[in-house]
Amino acid sequence: MSKSQKMRATLPVLNLVSGNQADAPASGRRQRRAAETRLRLFRCALQLIAERGFPSVTVEDITEAADVGKGTFFNYFATKDHVLGVMAEIQLGKVRKAASLASQGKQAIHAVLHRLMLRLAEEPGRSPDLARALISSFLASAGVRKIIVGRMLEGHKMIAEVVAAGQKRDEIDPRLNQEKVATQLLQAVMGTILLWSTHGEPALKVWIEDSFQHFWRAIALPGQEKKP
Amino acid sequence: MSKSQKMRATLPVLNLVSGNQADAPASGRRQRRAAETRLRLFRCALQLIAERGFPSVTVEDITEAADVGKGTFFNYFATKDHVLGVMAEIQLGKVRKAASLASQGKQAIHAVLHRLMLRLAEEPGRSPDLARALISSFLASAGVRKIIVGRMLEGHKMIAEVVAAGQKRDEIDPRLNQEKVATQLLQAVMGTILLWSTHGEPALKVWIEDSFQHFWRAIALPGQEKKP
Repeated sequence: MSKSQKMRATLPVLNLVSGNQADAPASGRRQRRAAETRLRLFRCALQLIAERGFPSVTVEDITEAADVGKGTFFNYFATKDHVLGVMAEIQLGKVRKAASLASQGKQAIHAVLHRLMLRLAEEPGRSPDLARALISSFLASAGVRKIIVGRMLEGHKMIAEVVAAGQKRDEIDPRLNQEKVATQLLQAVMGTILLWSTHGEPALKVWIEDSFQHFWRAIALPGQEKKP
Repeated sequence: MSKSQKMRATLPVLNLVSGNQADAPASGRRQRRAAETRLRLFRCALQLIAERGFPSVTVEDITEAADVGKGTFFNYFATKDHVLGVMAEIQLGKVRKAASLASQGKQAIHAVLHRLMLRLAEEPGRSPDLARALISSFLASAGVRKIIVGRMLEGHKMIAEVVAAGQKRDEIDPRLNQEKVATQLLQAVMGTILLWSTHGEPALKVWIEDSFQHFWRAIALPGQEKKP
């Protein structure tokens, strides 16, 4: 394995999209450029998916929009389906961040889960067209589904850990099953995005705010609920 | 308007699919047959949608599967999109039933909403393929969306009335906004169907059971919650 291959292989995927590259000196230029190209390909793909729907977008459309050669695409993604895997990675990064905040114990779990639900809705909330296209492509292709469901199971496990932390800290009802609460959080986010995407107003974050209040009332330790 | 035209025009759509035709004497034979044909067309369409996805199913495919002439289709449905309108009518009929039970006041609102959520999941719960196809076709076509969203708004209003009845009867927290609770119920059902459709196990009704318990904990009058 050459140095550059090794670098790319060990490059944390989320650094590529979060711009979180504090440890990149001069030797990181190539790495930085790769990250930029990958992110550009992803963004162009999202734009095209929102306009035309996933099935109608070709790899060539994406590389043309991103102004790179067609072959370049396959340096970053195994197949077209894998572009949507980036979306799942971005979402998983947010869950990971929530899990890390919860384990540090500096923030209330109420705040950690509130922020998590709002952040999970950021990308789909850009437009109802995009949200609908993302859900449809998730449902339509078995390949995309496999990639996303895998990430979702990882995320589910981490959310259950956050819930456990909330139970330890007397914020969440200890009688509740952590896995089931994690499932409810995912369902709340997905149900909200789905219903919003057919209405489009007001902004998704307003809808998510209501969904979070509802979610929290269902899981808060009795006596610890906020006012409705 | 001829007698038969009038009959068809005033025929409650839900009778067509619920088999609830106690008032059909001999003169109702034609009406009954029309109802059967419409239901057969709908069922064949659902089957084909589950197999191929809504965009790939033609009117001819549906009439062939239902063993009727192509022209017959348009006696029952204005366009292909309207077939999915039947799905929305079926769901709306369940909400109407819940609203009627709530206004009669014989059943607890807890039981009325519990049953409603389970019943709303019946058709999509037939198979994950069907559930995914229904959601995708709802999202993909502006025509289908318009029809379904219209029905959904009617349903939303009725659910808000059931919630109001629950507040009057000291089952549901009176501080909650009825419309917002109704939105949460729809989101819970849709989010559960969406997540289940990518997993498929166990049966959807098991998932809905958990979602209802969560939903109820969020809205019950403090002190009126059931055990988690």
